[in-house]
Amino acid sequence: MDVFTQAITPSATITGYSLSASEELSTGLRPAVLIFPGGGYQFCSDREAEPVALAYAAEGFNAFVARYAVGQDAPWEQSFNDGQECMQWVRRHARKYGSDPHQIAAVGFSAGGHLAASIATTRGDRPDALVLGYPVTRAEFGPLMGKEILDVVDSVDESTPPTFVFTTQSDGLVPASNTTDLVSALMAHNVPVEAHMYLLGAHGLSLAKAHTANGQAGSTDQAVAQWFQASVTFLRRIFSPFPLEGAAMTWKSYTDTRRVGIDMRVDRLLAVPQARAILQKLAPELLAFVEAHPASAHMSARILFEQAPDLFPEDTIRQVENELTACNR
Amino acid sequence: MDVFTQAITPSATITGYSLSASEELSTGLRPAVLIFPGGGYQFCSDREAEPVALAYAAEGFNAFVARYAVGQDAPWEQSFNDGQECMQWVRRHARKYGSDPHQIAAVGFSAGGHLAASIATTRGDRPDALVLGYPVTRAEFGPLMGKEILDVVDSVDESTPPTFVFTTQSDGLVPASNTTDLVSALMAHNVPVEAHMYLLGAHGLSLAKAHTANGQAGSTDQAVAQWFQASVTFLRRIFSPFPLEGAAMTWKSYTDTRRVGIDMRVDRLLAVPQARAILQKLAPELLAFVEAHPASAHMSARILFEQAPDLFPEDTIRQVENELTACNR
Amino acid sequence: MDVFTQAITPSATITGYSLSASEELSTGLRPAVLIFPGGGYQFCSDREAEPVALAYAAEGFNAFVARYAVGQDAPWEQSFNDGQECMQWVRRHARKYGSDPHQIAAVGFSAGGHLAASIATTRGDRPDALVLGYPVTRAEFGPLMGKEILDVVDSVDESTPPTFVFTTQSDGLVPASNTTDLVSALMAHNVPVEAHMYLLGAHGLSLAKAHTANGQAGSTDQAVAQWFQASVTFLRRIFSPFPLEGAAMTWKSYTDTRRVGIDMRVDRLLAVPQARAILQKLAPELLAFVEAHPASAHMSARILFEQAPDLFPEDTIRQVENELTACNR
Amino acid sequence: MDVFTQAITPSATITGYSLSASEELSTGLRPAVLIFPGGGYQFCSDREAEPVALAYAAEGFNAFVARYAVGQDAPWEQSFNDGQECMQWVRRHARKYGSDPHQIAAVGFSAGGHLAASIATTRGDRPDALVLGYPVTRAEFGPLMGKEILDVVDSVDESTPPTFVFTTQSDGLVPASNTTDLVSALMAHNVPVEAHMYLLGAHGLSLAKAHTANGQAGSTDQAVAQWFQASVTFLRRIFSPFPLEGAAMTWKSYTDTRRVGIDMRVDRLLAVPQARAILQKLAPELLAFVEAHPASAHMSARILFEQAPDLFPEDTIRQVENELTACNR
Repeated sequence: MDVFTQAITPSATITGYSLSASEELSTGLRPAVLIFPGGGYQFCSDREAEPVALAYAAEGFNAFVARYAVGQDAPWEQSFNDGQECMQWVRRHARKYGSDPHQIAAVGFSAGGHLAASIATTRGDRPDALVLGYPVTRAEFGPLMGKEILDVVDSVDESTPPTFVFTTQSDGLVPASNTTDLVSALMAHNVPVEAHMYLLGAHGLSLAKAHTANGQAGSTDQAVAQWFQASVTFLRRIFSPFPLEGAAMTWKSYTDTRRVGIDMRVDRLLAVPQARAILQKLAPELLAFVEAHPASAHMSARILFEQAPDLFPEDTIRQVENELTACNR
Repeated sequence: MDVFTQAITPSATITGYSLSASEELSTGLRPAVLIFPGGGYQFCSDREAEPVALAYAAEGFNAFVARYAVGQDAPWEQSFNDGQECMQWVRRHARKYGSDPHQIAAVGFSAGGHLAASIATTRGDRPDALVLGYPVTRAEFGPLMGKEILDVVDSVDESTPPTFVFTTQSDGLVPASNTTDLVSALMAHNVPVEAHMYLLGAHGLSLAKAHTANGQAGSTDQAVAQWFQASVTFLRRIFSPFPLEGAAMTWKSYTDTRRVGIDMRVDRLLAVPQARAILQKLAPELLAFVEAHPASAHMSARILFEQAPDLFPEDTIRQVENELTACNR
Repeated sequence: MDVFTQAITPSATITGYSLSASEELSTGLRPAVLIFPGGGYQFCSDREAEPVALAYAAEGFNAFVARYAVGQDAPWEQSFNDGQECMQWVRRHARKYGSDPHQIAAVGFSAGGHLAASIATTRGDRPDALVLGYPVTRAEFGPLMGKEILDVVDSVDESTPPTFVFTTQSDGLVPASNTTDLVSALMAHNVPVEAHMYLLGAHGLSLAKAHTANGQAGSTDQAVAQWFQASVTFLRRIFSPFPLEGAAMTWKSYTDTRRVGIDMRVDRLLAVPQARAILQKLAPELLAFVEAHPASAHMSARILFEQAPDLFPEDTIRQVENELTACNR
Repeated sequence: MDVFTQAITPSATITGYSLSASEELSTGLRPAVLIFPGGGYQFCSDREAEPVALAYAAEGFNAFVARYAVGQDAPWEQSFNDGQECMQWVRRHARKYGSDPHQIAAVGFSAGGHLAASIATTRGDRPDALVLGYPVTRAEFGPLMGKEILDVVDSVDESTPPTFVFTTQSDGLVPASNTTDLVSALMAHNVPVEAHMYLLGAHGLSLAKAHTANGQAGSTDQAVAQWFQASVTFLRRIFSPFPLEGAAMTWKSYTDTRRVGIDMRVDRLLAVPQARAILQKLAPELLAFVEAHPASAHMSARILFEQAPDLFPEDTIRQVENELTACNR
């Protein structure tokens, strides 16, 4: 993983958590998240920054944390401009970091949710999906932060990307109506949306787990902590990353290896006279190897063949496979 | 997060994933994991390296990936020595990275599991806990990797640390008996152990998720994928990291805020004449603020007091609290 | 479990699933659910009846399924009256079946959700909590079912009980706005609420699992299937059923049994000369028993004492405990 | 659900929990579990009886609880015979209750696990799968229960069915080696096996949840409580019950409904002049209906067609489908 911090504007930086490429991890282009921590436009909370980035990185996403203009002297437009510039930067540099430029989600919490949602509902480079935690969405909340802010609910349009949002109805700081008003607006504009409003929990839960709670049990909640995996499921459904070939092992495919065939354990094959004769005829080196290395006897003929591709040409393997399979008739 | 690679011996490196410190994340000293990827002592698999490190990092652990001597020219003793040196290095530098020097788990997969377990069962600097995925444990498996290796099962003693181990009974490469033999030995020596042997799944599943499957569905399994959270639960129980003060919100504590008191929403307090009178008498500035900022009316008196500590001395707050509470009698 | 069907009105029955009482299951009074299956007020869907009742029964709830007046000839008022009568019946007979009369949740799906919510928002015997799945809530939907129905959203008041509701935003039959409108009304009236709107899934998912899907994969969804456990968590938080004494085993309490004391395994106690002497002096019968039954050697002294309370008076046990504990000094 | 108790032998009964059949729940033949509660062959524990039956019933299984000969006067052979007779009875009556006669799992706890495993490892009518919780498996444990019992570990053979087993390594009553010895024997005889040994937890946890804890927190454990769903996954993989047709909704199938076509919402179709013209030409009754019932406007053309099959012949529907789809070209 490459972790770096990059200035984007005089008041904005991005900290990138870019996963290492490897031939053993041919995931295709990865989805990415651009995270906007909250903090009432007065600071950028560390509790909603790196821990969230790492949570998505652990699911195979590249993650970027935006730190944007905050404080009494920064007009909201400056924060907004910082957010847009960060969004563009991540998009523009997507391929450089192995990200899919069409699979970039903006993730924001509280005031950072307001910023992420502002970008997602405004003309410009919008994210491909939006994930919001207990967001501020109404302009009327601005003065409480000493700011004049966009009313995100009014700003929602048909181009707003699919949105996942969660909050707690007991949030005592940012009213949960900021979330429900947003959901109603998204639905009115035909925007796909998933929404979770949990019963209990204070404002600012982040991942709602002990390691993001800053030592306060009041910042944890077992029910709310499920939002994170739900958001991953949401993003996976929309983006379909990490394409796979073949099929996971099933009971049927497993039990097939328990019939005479190339996928049966060699020690069991050897207990079947007909199978033993086939191996002796077509692959005597395999028998010699197993005799010399009794610890390999539990492996299948196929696995042993694969260990020594030089000794066993594909033709031989196919013939063994056919003849062994024929034993079952 | 600080990511760095450090030479430990001529043939060993550690890649560290050290979480950023922050006053907002006063987690105390963090637990740490030292990860030994597998690869038959021929290579160190990237599939069992960074993705596993990030999975633990996302749970608040500092993570270190050891890459050790591998290949036909490296005798096993060299790999083992590399492992021990890595273990010592992580312990010695624990505090530097904010780790608890007494909460270091070794995590290893396949041949890397053999290495981790060798360190944990041998005199020297042993890890404080051990997490193994489909490990090699028997000496007889060594020749198949071209090595003469320690028989970890025979090496288990009473000083072996608490151990978590998982495998699949259908593992066609390293027999699951390597796991069950180890478990029996651990139990015979009174070592606390948690063990999971899943029904289905090939060798080398790593996290068993799409993003660690290298494009092969056969390297995923929904049941096996649960090993990771089980291992986190195991380590949390043993290490008890991230101590918390106070209590999570409960239905009772939440409903208490719905009775007249300092934790009630101000708009509801103001609807109770007796409560309104108390606020007018003791905290007229609060009423003025709410009038000026209607969006704050849903906040509790306590939250509003906390926003302006200069205006509201603790004595005032306590008096408001007492008088409001008295209204319920 | 006692399963019975009881006529409540000429057009309504209740099928009860009442858990068996047992001295070994001193759960206290159980919470109960009264389930209203959906079916557009034209029928009562079996998919939302017994399987849901059994799901709650498996969590320790008594469950009752109401079948109410449906069909073109039944005016809505008749269905509503049936619902209220069922509610009263469950309340009145709560103690008879071991239920807590103050812990009765109404659970309803689709049109059954409309009925449950109607009872919960109308003067009369209201449930203590409400659980709704993809409910109809708006009067305007009535004509599509050939009925004139209550507008539940308009009917919400401050006496409406805590409500859990889920739906899918992609519901093509009952618009998800029926759910979001209800949530807004509940919040406006200060009613505690938990709400989940999932991204994908058709109308009528019931438990969203294979065994309730009537053979149609389109009636399953892994994300939506989580609603059920979320609803159990919600009800448990509100009702706090199944009170417990003592504490679950922890790493500390477990490791305490590994120090010399009455909770240590006898074979290990006997390996400590001082401890062996104490047992020989105070509880020679215990030593004799273990000698006669080597399979008991792994049990703790306490467990062995408990097997034979006649042999070991409490005084003896306490003295053993004290003297063994003193060995650790 | 039909709950009944049936005498099987003079000392054995079966309590059946047989799910109701319904045309709306065409699940095919159901899998079944035959549950043997524990109790040291001295009694049959209610904590491991009905609650476990209901847990499986909630997953769509028919469940049967066997109560067998217990107490000092009953030789073990009598308990064993009772177990075999119960097994045969469930098999013979499988179809009567809608169970698949080839999908019957025996489930047993502690001494009941010993009984279930005895039947599964002995010539006779064996279950198709075996699920064991903290079982007694070794003959040497018999005398502690005042019985001479089969050594199940020695009894394992190649005809033993696939087995799921869990225990806790901290079990102070029945040593966890009873489980690990069994697992080793199963593996030696090539029997598919899944095994979970959790770190913490006393003997006799049943479901390890509050409602089965008899008021004792010491009989709960969040980690151990996961065994139940793991056992359901195990049985589902082996039995593949509840076959499904079609596919669950995906992001792609959902977004397809957002393009002009028969699955688009009618209000959106009507906003597209070309689509409106097609509907006016081919299905004027649909337009009339939507005009008369504005609440139906969010439904798709297909759903509306399905509500009135008499009005809309299949030919019409297909033509609408084709012409609407053609609009996208």
